Parts: sequence; C-alpha cells; structure tokens
Amino acid sequence: MSEQIRVIEDGTITSPVGFEAGATFAGMKSYREDKYDLGIVFSVSPCSCAGTFTRSTVRSPSVQLTEDNVGLGKVRAVVANSGIANAVVGEAGRKDAAEMAKLTAEKLGLSKEEIGVLSTGIIGMELPMALIRAGIPKIELSDDGGQFFAKAILTTDTFTKQYAVSYEHGGRTITVGGVAKGSGMIHPNMATMLAVVTTDAPVQDSFLQQTLKRAVDYSFNMISIDGDTSTNDTVLLLANGAASGELITSDSDGASLFKEAVDQVCVYLAKAIIRDGEGSSKVFEVQIQGAQTEEEARMAARTITDSNLVRTAVHGSDPNWGRIVAALGRSGATVEEGKLSVYINDVCIMEGGLPIPYFKDAVIQQMQQSEIAFRIDLNLGEASATAWGCNLSEAYVTFNSAYTT
Amino acid sequence: MSEQIRVIEDGTITSPVGFEAGATFAGMKSYREDKYDLGIVFSVSPCSCAGTFTRSTVRSPSVQLTEDNVGLGKVRAVVANSGIANAVVGEAGRKDAAEMAKLTAEKLGLSKEEIGVLSTGIIGMELPMALIRAGIPKIELSDDGGQFFAKAILTTDTFTKQYAVSYEHGGRTITVGGVAKGSGMIHPNMATMLAVVTTDAPVQDSFLQQTLKRAVDYSFNMISIDGDTSTNDTVLLLANGAASGELITSDSDGASLFKEAVDQVCVYLAKAIIRDGEGSSKVFEVQIQGAQTEEEARMAARTITDSNLVRTAVHGSDPNWGRIVAALGRSGATVEEGKLSVYINDVCIMEGGLPIPYFKDAVIQQMQQSEIAFRIDLNLGEASATAWGCNLSEAYVTFNSAYTT
Repeated sequence: MSEQIRVIEDGTITSPVGFEAGATFAGMKSYREDKYDLGIVFSVSPCSCAGTFTRSTVRSPSVQLTEDNVGLGKVRAVVANSGIANAVVGEAGRKDAAEMAKLTAEKLGLSKEEIGVLSTGIIGMELPMALIRAGIPKIELSDDGGQFFAKAILTTDTFTKQYAVSYEHGGRTITVGGVAKGSGMIHPNMATMLAVVTTDAPVQDSFLQQTLKRAVDYSFNMISIDGDTSTNDTVLLLANGAASGELITSDSDGASLFKEAVDQVCVYLAKAIIRDGEGSSKVFEVQIQGAQTEEEARMAARTITDSNLVRTAVHGSDPNWGRIVAALGRSGATVEEGKLSVYINDVCIMEGGLPIPYFKDAVIQQMQQSEIAFRIDLNLGEASATAWGCNLSEAYVTFNSAYTT
Repeated sequence: MSEQIRVIEDGTITSPVGFEAGATFAGMKSYREDKYDLGIVFSVSPCSCAGTFTRSTVRSPSVQLTEDNVGLGKVRAVVANSGIANAVVGEAGRKDAAEMAKLTAEKLGLSKEEIGVLSTGIIGMELPMALIRAGIPKIELSDDGGQFFAKAILTTDTFTKQYAVSYEHGGRTITVGGVAKGSGMIHPNMATMLAVVTTDAPVQDSFLQQTLKRAVDYSFNMISIDGDTSTNDTVLLLANGAASGELITSDSDGASLFKEAVDQVCVYLAKAIIRDGEGSSKVFEVQIQGAQTEEEARMAARTITDSNLVRTAVHGSDPNWGRIVAALGRSGATVEEGKLSVYINDVCIMEGGLPIPYFKDAVIQQMQQSEIAFRIDLNLGEASATAWGCNLSEAYVTFNSAYTT
C-alpha cells in the first residue's frame, strides 16, 4: 500500500466531492431494526461510470437495466432497495426496474438512462411498487448522506460496510469512497453482493472500466462465503471529476495511484463482507506464491478458501495442512509436490513437499485468533494471488437449515 | 434398469467366478473395531483390467504405480491398505508402493506388474512397512472372501459397501461385483474414494476401459460430499472371462447389457458412499432434464449437489427453490429463466420460471424423508444428468472441526 493514500475516518460514498446520498424506510424490510430499505446516491454533475455484473444466467432485470445504462455511459445516480431482489418474477421484474429508474430520474431531474438500479433481498417475490412510489420522493439527499445509503442496502448483514481514502496528486486532493453489502443467506435467497464506489477524480471512461474490473478481480472475486455469484451481484464505480485536474487515462502519471486507491477500497469492502459471513467468527487469508500463471494462483487460492474441510479446520483451529494440500491438488493449478512449502501465520509447517516438525501449540494458538494467514509457495514461477474466506461453523448450518420459505 | 439383471443377495467382489479375496489386521487402523486393514483380491486366471484415477496433481505413489500397471494391461490382483494413505511422504512413498506390489506378487506367484496397490488413510505419514511385510503372508484368500476385503478398505466409513448383480447372456451367467469405500474426513486427510469391480465376463481391453470410464462418469463422478477428488481416488475393473463365451466388444450383442450391469454396480456403490457421508442423514438426487448438452446437464446437477445452501435446506427440510435456482444460474449451464420447471419428489413447485402455489406442508413432509428427489427441467434440449448429494449438518462441522492433527 502506498503511503500517499490516507484512510478517511468514517469515510463513505459521500466523502468524495460532489456526491449526495440519502435513504428512507419504504416498508420492504421489516425484519431489521435500522429500517432504511430504499436509498439513492447521486453525482450533482455528469460523470463517468463503470460496472461489473453477475455472470449468473438467472439474473434480476434490475441488473440488466443497470448494465444497459452503464453501457450507454450515462449513469450518474443509483437507486437501491433491500428486502426484495426483483428476481425470478417474470415480466413484472422488467417493468418494475424500469419504473424505479423513471421515478428516480423524475425526482432528480435526470433522464431514465442516467439511473442504475440495485435490488437485494428475497427472490421470487414482486416488488411492492406502491411502497417504492411513495418512498422515492421522501428520500432526502445530502452531501453527508452516504451512511444512510449504506444502511439501506443491508439485508442479513450485521454491520454497514463503508470506507474512503484520499491522496494528493498534481496539487489536488482525490477521494475514493465505497459502500457494500454482502453476507450469506439467513433469509431465503439472499446472497447478493452489492457495492457502489464513488470518486471525484476525473477519469476517462475506458480506463475507469479497466480499473474497476481489475479491482473487482482482486477483491470481490476473491472472497467466498457460500457460492460465487447471485442473481443480483453488481459493483458500480462513478467518477465525477469534481476534484478537477487532468483526465486520468491508463498513460497518466496519476494512473497507478488511482488504481491503488480503488483497489484499497474494494479489498477493504470485500474483507468486511467476509468478516460478516453468517455464523462466521474468523477470516482467513490464502496467499499463493510461486505459481506458473496468475490464473492458476487464483484458482488455487479460491479452491482452498472454498473448501468445507479447510473452513471447518479453521473453525477448530486445527493446523491441518493435509486439507490445504488436498484442495490445492484438485484446484487445477500445476503443483510439484516436492517443491511445496506451507506457512501458517509465517510459521513453516511444510517444506519441500514434506511436513516438518513445528511447535504445534504455538500454531494452534495462532489459529485461535480472528484473522489467520495461510501462505503456500508452489516454487514453480513468479505468479501470485490472494483470496479470503471464513470459517464454517455449526451456527452457519443452524441458520441456513432453519425453515424459512 | 433392465429386468434381466438380478441383484445377488450379499453379493460382493468374490461373487463372480474365479475371484478370491481375503484380509488381515496388520496394525495400521487401531481406531476401528472391525480391524481389517490389509486385503487382497485376486483373479485366479489372467484377466483384462481397466482403471480410472484421481486427477489431483498431488497424488499418492500407489496411484501412480497402479495406473502404470493398468496401462501395461497386466493387473490381476489388487492389494489394499487402510489407515495410512502413502501420500505426501516424498521418495519413501514410491519405494513402499513398489514393495507392497512385490510382496503381493511373491505371495501369489505373479510378477510385480500384475499387481495394483490401493492405499487410504492419513496423508503425510509413511507406511509402516514392517507391519505390511508381516501382514501380507497372513492374508488367507478364499472364493467368498470379498466381505473381508470390503472391511479392509474402510476408514471413517460406518458400513461396508458391497453389491453384485448377474444376468444370463448367450446361455451363460455373467456376474459383476463391487466393493467401495468413501465417506468424508472425520480423521484428518481421509477422503479417498476407492472401488474395485470384478466380473467373470470375457471383455476386450479397450471396451472394458470405455465401459468403466462411462460408468464412473455416471456414478462416482456425480457424487459429492466435500470435494471431488483426493490424493488417492482409484476405481479398478477386472474381467477374467471365467464365465466363458465370446469376447464382449463394443459391437457385441452383449455389450449394452454388460455396460448396464457395470453401471448398476457403480451407481449402487456411489449412492452407498453418499448415504455414509459424515454427519449426513439424507441423500438427495438432482435430476437435470432438457439441457442443451450433457456436459451442461452434468455441471448443473453437480453445482446443485455441491451447494452448501441447498445442502443446509435439505437438512432443514426446506423446499427452498431459490437456492436451487441460484446454484443453477451460476453452474455455467444455459438457462432461460422463463422455461424453468422445478419438482420436489414430483410435486411441481416452479413452472415457466415462476414459483407456483403448492401445498407446502406436503412438500415439507416429503423433504423430511431420508431420500429426496429434485427434478429440474430446463426445457431447452434433450440432454439429462443425475447427481447425488447429502445434507450438510451441524454434526459434519462438529466432526470436522474437532482438533485432530
């Protein structure tokens, strides 16, 4: 991490200049005490936008509408609701997403192509449009309203996920802020991951998309609670240029620092989602080094974080290297057993493909902490990747097997 | 299933003519009461052999030796040990596997290339060769010894998996028998799936391999407890021709009945492994119909059986179609939401992509049974596939997070 990048205390999506946000309780999310369930974030001036969207073949019409509008390059406001995902409801879903965009555009004096729509919650249930029609006009927007938007997108999350950083470049202060929701599925059919990132940097459209795609690949795409994509997953990045200065392109002096700031926001939010995984109390990081290709490093890291056996070993503070090696072996990554090294919190427990004697009690004690790091060196090449997972607990099973539909 | 194929009561690998088997307790598996841990199965005459092997890049030298000998087309006896997997032990593993083959060849008066070696148990620990050297000569072989071999390969399994069928063809009785072990990992690093199938049919080598590969694809490769491959997974098929008659090739009259018999044995054994999944009390079948390709049907069926959220819903008897559809959406199979139908034990709960009203109590009652069938019709093509999974329970987590290394 660059020392030039500072974390902003209580930072959120309205930390960058020129963004307003707000939220209201429309009546869709009665199961939460902090009852915001409908929110808007808005750039007061036109802006560049980028997005990444679920690859599920069963996707919400809200996602399709947003992807289309991001494709037109026009999105400068986002309306989001939680409680109901607007997914698997047939033709009604398309009509309702379009109406949400239209209502938001009318409120803000924009065209409907300038709106992105995010929905999260129960699938297979139509949006209560009467509540949304009544709710949207009630949303009060302000330049410190990001915290309310952050609450409005939560479903089974137990805390809001917000973060912002800033740095100086070319005599100007650039700020990047973000909010996210994640968590697993206590309630039926809610595993959506949503994030909105905002910045006052002036950024060229194609470089903005490239920056977001890369950041998502290194953050949200490297976390795993219980599956890697839902009907509604969406990450948006809005850049309004309010900080002024020269347009940032891939060739700019400021390009790498900007990418780093977006990465830092996305990684923070992704790890916050993991920390809030259902029934989970521990986050573990899997760092793969020495892989032949980055793709193989990514596959290896993800297969290990996805493994139920590794996740239960983490739950039990068991330095079970056999399960790590088994997951690695089936990951598809090239592995030469005789070159393998495995470290738990920097204690080497396997070297040259053979388990080595180590002071077990010390490693178990390390594994009892709330953050654990596994490092696996394949010693075959230069590529690396990092993924994050959480322990699999009895509580996860209990929550998710409770009768809920 | 063909009506011509009869199930043999208490059938096992010595049900086909010309096979002998036996086992002993060598001292490697002290954690089980039925203490066989070293066994041999043996065709008294030369035979054809076929095999499928783990695709893990971290594999036991026992697997490599067996694959090499199957490649030479010579294997007619198999020695198996449980308790220790002979995996991730460096050079010692190769020497020990070779010595096990040599000791078995000497006992049986065969060459060492005629032996397959199967190992299952803890990884990262060397085989106690002194015990194996003392044990192999003690194994008493008999033509009803299959039941002892079946016990000798168990690790955390709670019951033996054995099955045999026979049918008449061309005036002769053909018998196919099999044993398997599976189960998850209560003990560290034990998830190996082993199976040996025997038959007295006379079968051409290449057709035998083709028959086994197909049967494994439809059975063992369609079950899932906690990952799809270990360091030691092996399935072997030995055909000694003792039933006499014409050699069966892919063009023979008897080809399809033979394939069906092998499929039936493999599917029975695969489902028995699932029934014995750790902490599991329910088996569920996922049948995908109407897929565009068989590959897509297989991916869809497997993604659903692998889903922790579907597995916890099965545990809680919750007809949570949203989780099924979410898994389907991320499986990679082509899905048109508007054409989707979902059935639980033949009760339609979703049609044309929309949830339909059904008598929920009746479906919940169905889901409380120990075997549940989900059928998903994609209505896009002609391809289908079936996979089997088990519920994910609190007990699974408790077992697997207990400190064991």
